[in-house]
Amino acid sequence: MYIGIDLGGTNIAAGLVDDNGRIIHKDSTPTLSERPVEEIIADMAAIARKVAGDTPLSEIHGVGIGCPGTVDNETGTVIYSNNIVMDHVPLAEIFRRHLDLPVNLENDANAAAYGEYITCAKDKKSFVFMTLGTGVGGGIILDGNIWRGFNGAGAEIGHSTLIMGGERCTCGKCGCLESYASVTALIRQTTEAIEAHPESMMNEWVKKHGKVNGRTSFECAELGDEVARQVCDRYIQYVAEGVCSIINILQPETFVIGGGISREGDALLTPLKKYVYKNDFNKHMPKTDIRIAQLFGDAGIVGAAMAAKI
Amino acid sequence: MYIGIDLGGTNIAAGLVDDNGRIIHKDSTPTLSERPVEEIIADMAAIARKVAGDTPLSEIHGVGIGCPGTVDNETGTVIYSNNIVMDHVPLAEIFRRHLDLPVNLENDANAAAYGEYITCAKDKKSFVFMTLGTGVGGGIILDGNIWRGFNGAGAEIGHSTLIMGGERCTCGKCGCLESYASVTALIRQTTEAIEAHPESMMNEWVKKHGKVNGRTSFECAELGDEVARQVCDRYIQYVAEGVCSIINILQPETFVIGGGISREGDALLTPLKKYVYKNDFNKHMPKTDIRIAQLFGDAGIVGAAMAAKI
Repeated sequence: MYIGIDLGGTNIAAGLVDDNGRIIHKDSTPTLSERPVEEIIADMAAIARKVAGDTPLSEIHGVGIGCPGTVDNETGTVIYSNNIVMDHVPLAEIFRRHLDLPVNLENDANAAAYGEYITCAKDKKSFVFMTLGTGVGGGIILDGNIWRGFNGAGAEIGHSTLIMGGERCTCGKCGCLESYASVTALIRQTTEAIEAHPESMMNEWVKKHGKVNGRTSFECAELGDEVARQVCDRYIQYVAEGVCSIINILQPETFVIGGGISREGDALLTPLKKYVYKNDFNKHMPKTDIRIAQLFGDAGIVGAAMAAKI
Repeated sequence: MYIGIDLGGTNIAAGLVDDNGRIIHKDSTPTLSERPVEEIIADMAAIARKVAGDTPLSEIHGVGIGCPGTVDNETGTVIYSNNIVMDHVPLAEIFRRHLDLPVNLENDANAAAYGEYITCAKDKKSFVFMTLGTGVGGGIILDGNIWRGFNGAGAEIGHSTLIMGGERCTCGKCGCLESYASVTALIRQTTEAIEAHPESMMNEWVKKHGKVNGRTSFECAELGDEVARQVCDRYIQYVAEGVCSIINILQPETFVIGGGISREGDALLTPLKKYVYKNDFNKHMPKTDIRIAQLFGDAGIVGAAMAAKI
């Protein structure tokens, strides 16, 4: 039995996870990210105890923590995070003052990737996970291990280039995949289309729902709105081109798409696969299997817990 | 002792290589790529015997072959190559009819990458090699092993996206790194600049040398021509953006640039490193060491030979 903790900007989510990666029990508590980090870590330990419930600590082999930012997995230190402000915080060590169990610290996107890998691809030799959320995150699993790069800062697949010199990205570079394929980017693309096309059904949708979000274009496209259809088609091309680029580099056996937009399911997956399989470099060998994520919000908990098991 | 063979479209190059990756003796013979592949393979065996010289075959532990196209390393089969036309050719098996030694077949770019890795980075945990030649090729070495992807078609780093929808690439997709960062692309960029700027010194250079090549802009920039300087600067930005993108994904410990253009040395490397280190995502951990290749034309022979040793 393991405990997985997903430290997010809004909530700390934790779960008691069995040896096969199944969540037995889970709970969450607000992060309140502006307070001193020691208090946040104390609450992480408290929620870990809570989800453990009646399970004796002797039966819990470790605690896995997924944390935003750059982490040093070997020392359990958060090198830098600006989401929850941390600069060289020995998170694992502080956590163990509250709950003395072995702690494994991972980057949150790597943890989520590992959770999806364990759940839907653990017999595969190579695996890439991409989340389409506020940003575009991801993780790479090669031969069963999380690929962190030599410095722990690897797998920033959202910051591969899509259009050199294009839209400014949060990272400072211009034209990253993230600046075209994130939910934030889709909202920008949708807003621009609405402004250019007052006749689009999306105007009514926004009046009804209060504001543009990542569902606006997909819902209106499904209802037959041509402008919304064009927004979706173009957005899916951006995502697919990014997927294709990473496949050409790594040729992973499985590529999983997660994050909010992945809930669109086949409306996203079918055209995406068509684009990738038409445009990828490999014409003579088996193709990468591309799928939608299974765990969604629980991937971070499961992955953090299972990474503590390695 | 090993024999390494680099099968190219123009020449078959072969070398007797010691256990540390040093070439003892090398030779080459024309490929004459239009003839039946069985004849080419017979000549590969003949040149292998020739470079072996007086060394008894019992002291040669294996033959490594680097071959263009998609290869199946496990079965020693060339799945597909259009450079030297091959379609499911059991190259290793045919070779052994002429020279019965263990044969290891690799893609030529992977072999060259492995040669550079063995020569200048064999203590490193992760390594990427990129050649700037007629195309942009490369190889990825992770934990000492050639990364081929699950299907053997991996490491096509020249076909990562640089400008989605941009220049048409030889692979059929538009906007690949190769279509901006290859020598072919540099010649196109140079030609366009010459046509737009009759005052550029490059016009005189071309008259003197007969035609535009990959050296035109670099040589004229060094002599102070402003238009040539702009061509070089832009070309280096294309290469650097591609390097940056791959570093953000993999964070390899070492990244080596080879191929014809890499002979420009610091004129290429200094601005390239400046661009990458300014634009890469990792701001808090050690940076990837970026270097110029050491072996140039011999990388394929050394890498093929050393890959036969693994």
